[in-house]
Amino acid sequence: MPIDLFAKHEARLNAAVGACRDRGWWSPFPESPSRRLHPEGAKQRGQQRFDGRLGQRFKLSSPGSRGWTGYEQSPYTGEPLGVRYADPDPQRVVEEARAAMVSWAAAGPRERVGVCMEILDRLAGDMFENAWATMHTAGQPFMMAFAGSGANALDRGLEALCQAWRAMSEIPKNAVFQRRFAQGSTVTLDKRYRLRPVGPALVMSCGSYPAWNAWPAVFANLSTGNAVILKPHPDAILPMAIGVATAQSVLQAAGFSPQLITLAPDTRDTPVAMDYLRHPDVAIVDYTGSQRFGAWVERNCTEKQVYTETAGCNAAVLLSTHDLDGALHAIAHGLCTFSSQMCTAPQNIWLPRQGVQTPEGLVSPDDVKARLVAAVDALVADPALAAPLAGALQSADVLATMDKLRALAPRVGRVLREGGPYVHPDFPRARTATPLLVDVDGPVENLHQREHFGPMGFVLTADSPADAVSRAAEDARLHGAIACYAWTTDADEIETTIDRFADAGASLGVNLYRQLPINYAAAYSDFHVTGLNPAGNACLTDMAFVTRRFRVVQSKVERPAPSE
Amino acid sequence: MPIDLFAKHEARLNAAVGACRDRGWWSPFPESPSRRLHPEGAKQRGQQRFDGRLGQRFKLSSPGSRGWTGYEQSPYTGEPLGVRYADPDPQRVVEEARAAMVSWAAAGPRERVGVCMEILDRLAGDMFENAWATMHTAGQPFMMAFAGSGANALDRGLEALCQAWRAMSEIPKNAVFQRRFAQGSTVTLDKRYRLRPVGPALVMSCGSYPAWNAWPAVFANLSTGNAVILKPHPDAILPMAIGVATAQSVLQAAGFSPQLITLAPDTRDTPVAMDYLRHPDVAIVDYTGSQRFGAWVERNCTEKQVYTETAGCNAAVLLSTHDLDGALHAIAHGLCTFSSQMCTAPQNIWLPRQGVQTPEGLVSPDDVKARLVAAVDALVADPALAAPLAGALQSADVLATMDKLRALAPRVGRVLREGGPYVHPDFPRARTATPLLVDVDGPVENLHQREHFGPMGFVLTADSPADAVSRAAEDARLHGAIACYAWTTDADEIETTIDRFADAGASLGVNLYRQLPINYAAAYSDFHVTGLNPAGNACLTDMAFVTRRFRVVQSKVERPAPSE
Repeated sequence: MPIDLFAKHEARLNAAVGACRDRGWWSPFPESPSRRLHPEGAKQRGQQRFDGRLGQRFKLSSPGSRGWTGYEQSPYTGEPLGVRYADPDPQRVVEEARAAMVSWAAAGPRERVGVCMEILDRLAGDMFENAWATMHTAGQPFMMAFAGSGANALDRGLEALCQAWRAMSEIPKNAVFQRRFAQGSTVTLDKRYRLRPVGPALVMSCGSYPAWNAWPAVFANLSTGNAVILKPHPDAILPMAIGVATAQSVLQAAGFSPQLITLAPDTRDTPVAMDYLRHPDVAIVDYTGSQRFGAWVERNCTEKQVYTETAGCNAAVLLSTHDLDGALHAIAHGLCTFSSQMCTAPQNIWLPRQGVQTPEGLVSPDDVKARLVAAVDALVADPALAAPLAGALQSADVLATMDKLRALAPRVGRVLREGGPYVHPDFPRARTATPLLVDVDGPVENLHQREHFGPMGFVLTADSPADAVSRAAEDARLHGAIACYAWTTDADEIETTIDRFADAGASLGVNLYRQLPINYAAAYSDFHVTGLNPAGNACLTDMAFVTRRFRVVQSKVERPAPSE
Repeated sequence: MPIDLFAKHEARLNAAVGACRDRGWWSPFPESPSRRLHPEGAKQRGQQRFDGRLGQRFKLSSPGSRGWTGYEQSPYTGEPLGVRYADPDPQRVVEEARAAMVSWAAAGPRERVGVCMEILDRLAGDMFENAWATMHTAGQPFMMAFAGSGANALDRGLEALCQAWRAMSEIPKNAVFQRRFAQGSTVTLDKRYRLRPVGPALVMSCGSYPAWNAWPAVFANLSTGNAVILKPHPDAILPMAIGVATAQSVLQAAGFSPQLITLAPDTRDTPVAMDYLRHPDVAIVDYTGSQRFGAWVERNCTEKQVYTETAGCNAAVLLSTHDLDGALHAIAHGLCTFSSQMCTAPQNIWLPRQGVQTPEGLVSPDDVKARLVAAVDALVADPALAAPLAGALQSADVLATMDKLRALAPRVGRVLREGGPYVHPDFPRARTATPLLVDVDGPVENLHQREHFGPMGFVLTADSPADAVSRAAEDARLHGAIACYAWTTDADEIETTIDRFADAGASLGVNLYRQLPINYAAAYSDFHVTGLNPAGNACLTDMAFVTRRFRVVQSKVERPAPSE
């Protein structure tokens, strides 16, 4: 007799549903690799499994393989990982995904959610292996990779699963409908409501933070009955391949086709995304990545459901503070964390021309800039401190963007901080950079009005505190922003600033000072991306993220009258 | 002190939310015009109000009026109604809609839902007036118009309002988030979640059944904070104008702008829809009408949210029955009701070549056809019976379609029943027709694979019962269907037929015999349109209909540490 996976995980699911409602802090997954939190030898086994992948063919169920693909390089060692992945035939992948959906759809929400909970549980067992895989593809520091591809990503996956479960649970399986029409006798109809998937879905994960956005899309799709075709960024296939392998084994053990989730790997030179984006049977696209390609998908895949999370120009508006160095440390920390390669990293730092009000009096913009540079320096001057904070650059493109910005800087102002490489103590060949800061003091050009992916920031001066808020919010509205930040000691200004950014569709963190990485977004508590500005149209995780992934088909059968 | 409208209507709202969950029969509105159910004199007052509209300018709040528009003719009298409506300037309408949304969005879900409940309550007071308005524009018989623009439409509006209220209620206004990061002290964040509208919304209502689809869209939009621009079909403006006037007066009394709902009337010769469909600030389109234009909106308004309910080729599959005349009566009734101008009317009647199994033995297709014609004749032979059932034809286009079909019939088979006019006892000049039935027995062409709007049906013969189900379902999948019907006495066949239509995304009614109009769809119980075939992408009313009409913007403010 098969195990009832739903019953096995029901308590955890219910707790997660409660967390989505309460929106406080909660997680069933360990965020830290501390030995106390994991089984004996887990770290070693994870490392061995990762090492064992290198230079090998990765075993997955891949329909109609046309050969081998994949070219990943470690941003830390500069060496290719040498992992090769089967290159499945897109037409076969879509066909088998559709075929796999038949019994999966018929299984119903309860069974699907049970299997998804089991997958999440098993993915938690991959945390160490996946941390190394994420580190050596995306470039994240190990501790961040452990949380970012582990607990934090699983939490976002579980959150999306909860929302899907809540949405599906709103609809009963059956109902009895009884009424009289005009003078007739009572009619009884037995109604049934069947939830139908709309997929398959293409999930495109990003190169810098692959699991955090992929798992929500994967579980939103799987739980609602849709097969997933997971197309990872060509630079970060391995973390996704490990996840797909685990998911396939759980699905198979539960009696379903492994092709409910299929890896569609590619290389930068031989991309496959278009084969799926143009396939008429792919009905859903979940995309994380650049705003440019995200907008292309939104505009061109109009016959599909499209969910995007891209990027914007996040602002940090510094107006007044009881602790200037605390605020500057928070901004500097946001700029340095994973070298600003997170979609919640601040980019545009706005100061009022009159200066920032502090307990010491007004501090002039020039002094604030100097202290900001010092705050960044304090975090990255010592490579032993820089390494676990900044990690490595996901791609050589980041260095090119920095070079270009350095060259352009004199046109809009001047370079405040050069942002050269630091020497990683463990990986001397690591691709690294500390933040490049540009002081925009000329007539402002629009350079800051788009994302500069990587450790780059702009310091901008506004005519007044209100002007700083207004311009930062307007940039968010027009050009996109995922997370903005403000510091002010004035209670009224807190309210007007929150209002202004809300109008721009940008989430705002206010007076984040203390032991908190400012660009941290918590599953179950933080809604990530609003859909109200160009930074993406989908939110992790609201009901809109899940409710269209399934539809209701009903039937009604009239009961013969008792006398007949 | 203003009245707390939410508190006033809370019990009814809660009962409606319960009905959406239980999905049995429920309604707070009287479906019948019976004197016992309405205040003394309500019918007379309604008639007087309707008569008072004729030949007059209709008073509404209409921004930037460019003159007067509107040309409606009664399908019963053939006379113009002579009601003239201000023709507002689209640019001004959109601007004022946006302006009106500011305080409406700020009011929050509870207040908005309270105002919407009050509007519904007040619309219920318009039932008699609106019944005459609907009769003399759409052509519905009076009793149908009374229910169809009254209780049935208000129920669908209340249902949509419930779904929006449920979706918005899932998100708390505030949360307290507390956790420690690494070795730091506990951080406390006060989080707020603000719901933001995305509109304005354009709601395009149809000519034959205007209120039933309009109110769900109107209340889904208003409750989530979006202003509505209501563009009625040029043949059926008055029922919508009456509703807009009532809604405007409630909104104004509650302290909001009347431009939260604006009528955008037009004529067939001077259409205004494109001005709104092409306006970049119109963010939502709710469309009810032809499949052709609905598909155009879906394909072309890709930067807007588009919700459509259009049409398809609904099937009635007759396989076996314990009561052949009962089943044929049910089909005939569906064909005659409002002259098949309902989107749930059957069109394609499928029979197995071997005949229909009955207690009398197999009845041959030819005999079934003859008995179907007799069943239709029985319903419409007497004009006194035909009139309250079939009503009038919404547009002269229906007659043209019937002429065309009569001419084409010999190419696909033969005319089974001519379907000429009947003479309405009260309105001798009424535009009427009884069902035209075409027997398709040649090599089947695709004539039946699209909606023939009006009293037209096809009888088709399949090679077997399974073939009949398969072909009817395949037509639904490829060409759209909103409601299909089947009759079979075989329990297994019931299941396989339900499965097959579910795969085609078509709702199915099975063995509907008795005192039930087969094309009746009940709010709170029947999901209307699945979104899984070309008959529309939106469902009345699932969560997907409401969840994207608002988005969440959050803020988080760090609390100073107690010791500081």
